[in-house]
Amino acid sequence: MTKTVNGFSKKTKEEKIAWLASTYLENNPQAISILKHYWNTDEKLQKLHDDFIENAISNYYLPFAIAPNFLINGKLYALPMVIEESSVVAAAGNAAKFWLNRGGFKTEVISTTKNGQIHLNYYGEPQLLKDFFNFIQPVLKASISDIEKNMRARKGGLIELSLADKTEVLEGYYFIHATFETLDAMGANFINSCLEKIAHVFETEAQQYEPFKNKNTFPETVMSILSNYVPECLVRAEVSCHVDKLTTKHLDGKKFASKFVRAIAIAKAETRRAVTHNKGIMNGIDAVIIATGNDFRAVEAGIHAYAARNNYYGSLTHAEVEDDIFKFRIEIPLAIGTVGGLTSLHPMTKLALEILKNPSAKELMEIIAVAGLAQNFAAIRSLITTGIQKGHMKMHLMNILNQQEATEDEKNLAISHFSSKTISHSAVVEFINEIRSK
Amino acid sequence: MTKTVNGFSKKTKEEKIAWLASTYLENNPQAISILKHYWNTDEKLQKLHDDFIENAISNYYLPFAIAPNFLINGKLYALPMVIEESSVVAAAGNAAKFWLNRGGFKTEVISTTKNGQIHLNYYGEPQLLKDFFNFIQPVLKASISDIEKNMRARKGGLIELSLADKTEVLEGYYFIHATFETLDAMGANFINSCLEKIAHVFETEAQQYEPFKNKNTFPETVMSILSNYVPECLVRAEVSCHVDKLTTKHLDGKKFASKFVRAIAIAKAETRRAVTHNKGIMNGIDAVIIATGNDFRAVEAGIHAYAARNNYYGSLTHAEVEDDIFKFRIEIPLAIGTVGGLTSLHPMTKLALEILKNPSAKELMEIIAVAGLAQNFAAIRSLITTGIQKGHMKMHLMNILNQQEATEDEKNLAISHFSSKTISHSAVVEFINEIRSK
Repeated sequence: MTKTVNGFSKKTKEEKIAWLASTYLENNPQAISILKHYWNTDEKLQKLHDDFIENAISNYYLPFAIAPNFLINGKLYALPMVIEESSVVAAAGNAAKFWLNRGGFKTEVISTTKNGQIHLNYYGEPQLLKDFFNFIQPVLKASISDIEKNMRARKGGLIELSLADKTEVLEGYYFIHATFETLDAMGANFINSCLEKIAHVFETEAQQYEPFKNKNTFPETVMSILSNYVPECLVRAEVSCHVDKLTTKHLDGKKFASKFVRAIAIAKAETRRAVTHNKGIMNGIDAVIIATGNDFRAVEAGIHAYAARNNYYGSLTHAEVEDDIFKFRIEIPLAIGTVGGLTSLHPMTKLALEILKNPSAKELMEIIAVAGLAQNFAAIRSLITTGIQKGHMKMHLMNILNQQEATEDEKNLAISHFSSKTISHSAVVEFINEIRSK
Repeated sequence: MTKTVNGFSKKTKEEKIAWLASTYLENNPQAISILKHYWNTDEKLQKLHDDFIENAISNYYLPFAIAPNFLINGKLYALPMVIEESSVVAAAGNAAKFWLNRGGFKTEVISTTKNGQIHLNYYGEPQLLKDFFNFIQPVLKASISDIEKNMRARKGGLIELSLADKTEVLEGYYFIHATFETLDAMGANFINSCLEKIAHVFETEAQQYEPFKNKNTFPETVMSILSNYVPECLVRAEVSCHVDKLTTKHLDGKKFASKFVRAIAIAKAETRRAVTHNKGIMNGIDAVIIATGNDFRAVEAGIHAYAARNNYYGSLTHAEVEDDIFKFRIEIPLAIGTVGGLTSLHPMTKLALEILKNPSAKELMEIIAVAGLAQNFAAIRSLITTGIQKGHMKMHLMNILNQQEATEDEKNLAISHFSSKTISHSAVVEFINEIRSK
């Protein structure tokens, strides 16, 4: 097996690229040149990015864009958004503009508690374990005082420990549930460090506990880790206005509101729709999550599981008309941070936070919930009026044209040609070939 | 409101930056310089990236890294991974190496059918709608022949239309369910274009249908869109070996296998664990999804909803020991593409596909499922042995050191100092301050 490699991570970046090029790219000089073409010319800055993760050999560009005109709780924001999908920022901007003149977005952080578990095996008498847990709790709490020091100083840290008996679901399975307040930090490393320390002390102390020794049955730690399921770390965002204010050139406000509410009802009734509905919401959420240096996999997992919390997978947004007032809201769990991790390390992330006026984690929760709600509003509005493809394909047309390396003249011809025609990849390529052959 | 702006998207990039700087960044020259510092010096290349989405003003770097030694169905791969989390690529490389000598990964694409819906309101006699649907089906299918042309030539396209009666869940709610084979394309634009065309024809023809006219009750289209819920687009990846082969310096193979199986059982039993468990899987999946120019929000939504398909949210992976053979597998829905969209537009994405030897969409499904399984294996292995923090914090230490602009000497001192100590942000900062004050 000549394609295997030992000690790859120990190689220098140049060596890694050389290995990759000779093993997988037939030493194609163009491939190597592309990799290097994406390096920043500032060596120090590039070194910073190289050290983010193991085996980094270049930078992957995602567009960093701005969606202005977001009125949130009476304050105006321009949202930094990092996303590759062509229509997302345009949609965000449209929704922001729409609500700018209709009272803007209102938000509320409902709760900020994060959590983690120490998963246990224990096959002895349940009461013994419960007694031991109560007995040892103060020791467990004290054991993390070093790790907690800085967090405590800012009034965060471990909130509570409790013992959950899950033996009805799985034989011998218990866990210690720990709740935390991590303030402006996402807190993953903090929580995991606390949990691992507590687990270690728990297991060690259990070995010394007489009742366990008498029965020769000890609880055993399987694993300790934070949970990305954070339904106690919740934020709400909403918009509302009189239905008359929803009237546009093409559609009566009352009719629009009723179609809109129906579209949400469908997303609540049918999983196949709900998944796409929520996916659109995540377009907006992830774009701000990435721009601000947060972990989008954590946020995605927490939010989708929350969408499934009632034993079926449903819409994250809710709409209604009451006394001719149209109300539209989102409620999502968001465990994020504005300090620590990438937030202070990645210059573009620092800048994104600066654009948002260096928000607290709570404020960022609110902004991100708004990004999701705005995205959903724009998507539903397109779907129930012009259809999703019209706006989307306009952006897509530019992408196809760029791919064909179209000149500005060719682009203008194509835009005018396709203004009234169905845009498909093949149709655009055909059109370009046609004008080029003339 | 002086912070609002009109026609922002029409401004040039320089104008956008000028507006942003004066409105939100107090004209801080450093902020402007950071934005421009991330531009590629190749103007043509930068223009390409600027056109990906609306209002792009700079590039956001994510590290592009390589995880070598993946043996998949007897072929060796180096996986391109784009991710900001420090431990993901290291974990992928470790898992790949581990299974390289134990038979590698085996995969199978189970199905590749994608789907979309035309959501309908209809309050008349159900049978009339069913009759009309059967009557009009050939016309609906014929209506998309233009859009389908290229896809048909490659033996893809619309597979089937069916009518679903959902009135038990929501009054007057029906949908036309359409299934598609989109071959190597993700197919979102294709499917949406087909659906919108079919919906238009459906609605127009319904207006002419005598039985509807007689009752003056017509079906109405609410919206038409693909579904990101794709349980009929499924791939499986697995590893297996004799438990003896799992034995390492620190742990007996049989004991390791049993702890591993238990960890998976816990992720099936408890949502708080399942969400984090699956989040770790998505670390690996999304890293390859992004590198290959696919849409990670679509994949995330589809996979998490799939994890919740049995009315509770559970683990995406499965483990067992049978006759002393340890088996570990993943099964996930993946609607992705290797042509169209960003895949052929983004030079780094093209390169990522080249590194993977330009796979078909099916092959890429297999590779991505392996990335998810490998990541989960590495995570569970850490969790049930050393704990997750040891490896993670080592990478994290480097990040904190970079943030403190530590010199190579300071880094070496810190690495040796923290080799046996708990790494926390404050402890590292303290340590650096201490050695600097000497």
